[in-house]
Amino acid sequence: MATVKPPADPEADPRVKAVFDDIRETRGSDFVNNVWRYLAFDPALLEEVWRDVKAVLAIPSLIDPKTKEMIYAAVSIANACDYCTHSHLASARAKGMTAAEQAELLRIVATAAKTNHILNAIRPPIDAAFLAED
Amino acid sequence: MATVKPPADPEADPRVKAVFDDIRETRGSDFVNNVWRYLAFDPALLEEVWRDVKAVLAIPSLIDPKTKEMIYAAVSIANACDYCTHSHLASARAKGMTAAEQAELLRIVATAAKTNHILNAIRPPIDAAFLAED
Amino acid sequence: MATVKPPADPEADPRVKAVFDDIRETRGSDFVNNVWRYLAFDPALLEEVWRDVKAVLAIPSLIDPKTKEMIYAAVSIANACDYCTHSHLASARAKGMTAAEQAELLRIVATAAKTNHILNAIRPPIDAAFLAED
Amino acid sequence: MATVKPPADPEADPRVKAVFDDIRETRGSDFVNNVWRYLAFDPALLEEVWRDVKAVLAIPSLIDPKTKEMIYAAVSIANACDYCTHSHLASARAKGMTAAEQAELLRIVATAAKTNHILNAIRPPIDAAFLAED
Amino acid sequence: MATVKPPADPEADPRVKAVFDDIRETRGSDFVNNVWRYLAFDPALLEEVWRDVKAVLAIPSLIDPKTKEMIYAAVSIANACDYCTHSHLASARAKGMTAAEQAELLRIVATAAKTNHILNAIRPPIDAAFLAED
Amino acid sequence: MATVKPPADPEADPRVKAVFDDIRETRGSDFVNNVWRYLAFDPALLEEVWRDVKAVLAIPSLIDPKTKEMIYAAVSIANACDYCTHSHLASARAKGMTAAEQAELLRIVATAAKTNHILNAIRPPIDAAFLAED
Repeated sequence: MATVKPPADPEADPRVKAVFDDIRETRGSDFVNNVWRYLAFDPALLEEVWRDVKAVLAIPSLIDPKTKEMIYAAVSIANACDYCTHSHLASARAKGMTAAEQAELLRIVATAAKTNHILNAIRPPIDAAFLAED
Repeated sequence: MATVKPPADPEADPRVKAVFDDIRETRGSDFVNNVWRYLAFDPALLEEVWRDVKAVLAIPSLIDPKTKEMIYAAVSIANACDYCTHSHLASARAKGMTAAEQAELLRIVATAAKTNHILNAIRPPIDAAFLAED
Repeated sequence: MATVKPPADPEADPRVKAVFDDIRETRGSDFVNNVWRYLAFDPALLEEVWRDVKAVLAIPSLIDPKTKEMIYAAVSIANACDYCTHSHLASARAKGMTAAEQAELLRIVATAAKTNHILNAIRPPIDAAFLAED
Repeated sequence: MATVKPPADPEADPRVKAVFDDIRETRGSDFVNNVWRYLAFDPALLEEVWRDVKAVLAIPSLIDPKTKEMIYAAVSIANACDYCTHSHLASARAKGMTAAEQAELLRIVATAAKTNHILNAIRPPIDAAFLAED
Repeated sequence: MATVKPPADPEADPRVKAVFDDIRETRGSDFVNNVWRYLAFDPALLEEVWRDVKAVLAIPSLIDPKTKEMIYAAVSIANACDYCTHSHLASARAKGMTAAEQAELLRIVATAAKTNHILNAIRPPIDAAFLAED
Repeated sequence: MATVKPPADPEADPRVKAVFDDIRETRGSDFVNNVWRYLAFDPALLEEVWRDVKAVLAIPSLIDPKTKEMIYAAVSIANACDYCTHSHLASARAKGMTAAEQAELLRIVATAAKTNHILNAIRPPIDAAFLAED
């Protein structure tokens, strides 16, 4: 029940094929999941989204890959994105997140939501000690 | 500009004093920030929120304390909670998050928001490979 | 720090004056709060918003006035609307909500947010028993 | 299409059985809905969520049970939680909410959303009269 | 999997029939989509929602019809409303939005979400130049 | 009250200076607003965000510049981003949006929010006619 129609043969377009090849090589897997197949309706948008996601998730950085997927999933849950929640929790599991860690992630996300709502209701002044500026 | 009035002398109430004492002891600091001072308008609510936050953030668990604060901040950003964003980014910094790590956290949160919105727009079917169930 | 400029003398416009008069009469008070003064930048929008709010909050209906303001405030908290949260919690207090009831409202809102996030993460199938349709 | 796998025989775990027994006894019904069956993947999380929900919804308090479910549903709608919206509207109906009251609830939630967005756009200053503090 | 039960024969109610007739006439089409069939569970709510939507989308105004549907869809995506996203993107397509324009719309919505999250995290002071007031 | 500390002399860093120069040249103005001054705490993040925003807003495309800013503002309102709402409404005004058009934008955003919440509550099935796929 999508709002765009994925191309029947996406890799017939060389720009799409180049992105799909890079996805397969970067991940070391032949599996190209639906988000990329549907984004192929517009090759420029596909290129842009893959470039963004690759920069954040597929390139070594200060935060380890499993944690990056967990943070990504946490934001996806808060934004009520069904596909993103499924895909990034699955990626986190593929990178080693255990069921116990997934439960702890849910506990953090849920407790944050609880206090977010309480403080959006109470609206206390922000303590000077929390400001980054002098 | 809060919606509740904090007690002038919150620790005159022994239930409030017990929570504040536990906050100070748990954190090893005399600083009790505004959220607790305002929540003291209802001692039962104060006790409940502190119990929840302590269970998630102050007790050793599978996820290290700095990462827990970063996940907590990520959700707070997505939920547009001003106070929570300030307080949990400050806590993450107090637990060792560097400016470079904070920048990477923002990059993950922002890229997640970008793809969350694209996928909430496209609504592709969820790949069978992402489901936890058989 | 608003994004529209309120008219210096809003009631010079007869359409604005008519709305302000109705606000004062409906509420039995001379106080016209800022939302109406700023909405006066566009009399048609002012008329529409007042008509909507009056229909929901100022006309006797199945749900009592205090409860209506509490539900209104709950949604405003979830939508992170600062002005709305302040104004509808204040209205609920003006209609009899006690501090203890406000604390209970926050507890419901916060617990709902907690389970909302957990279930947006888990995405269990909806039980057949919950469907309104046969 | 869930992100966790519910145990095939959840009540084989005595912690899960204890929670399910309490759910059945508290509600006076043998029906244990899916959220609890899926949360059983982590007994500690199951215990915590049930404790929270029971404290808010199943224990007599200042706000009557039907109204509590309606407030809970209102927040769930604003947070776009599909499962929560279905389950809490169903619970409100089970506690006496009529179709006319459900229509009025939707009207309040929808009008709140409308003014929430307008005021998040206009950002007028908060009237001094709305502040809880002196 | 709806939370209200649509009437089996909605147009048996003259108030519902009047709205459906106006929908068909306004749109020049016999197709009455599901939102109206389900809203018919409460004729007063149906009348109100149709009046609102007609005023915004079906009446000539300063913003052209295709652009109005695109703005409506953008908000629906941000609010994670599945039905609304489908229906308003479909309406925009029916009013001439091309696949390339839909891709550009997604790019704007997604980039806005990205910077929204970054700025909800950083919380810089608002430049005086942006204020509408003197 | 920001969560990052802007550099005292941001353009001392050549990467920051290059972005600021491009902002000034692209916009034909010497004004560099706060978001860029604060993002300068991390030159790589500054470069990335400017590249994204420039690609969407500063480069001629299918949608005219004023409309792009209005769509951007609509999403920012829905995401409750205070800074973004101010800055993109100001940009839209600078590109020709009149007060009457701003009022119409608010009416579209607000009505969308109203129906978004109603349909997230009712959850009717999506009409087959709305699907992009065959």
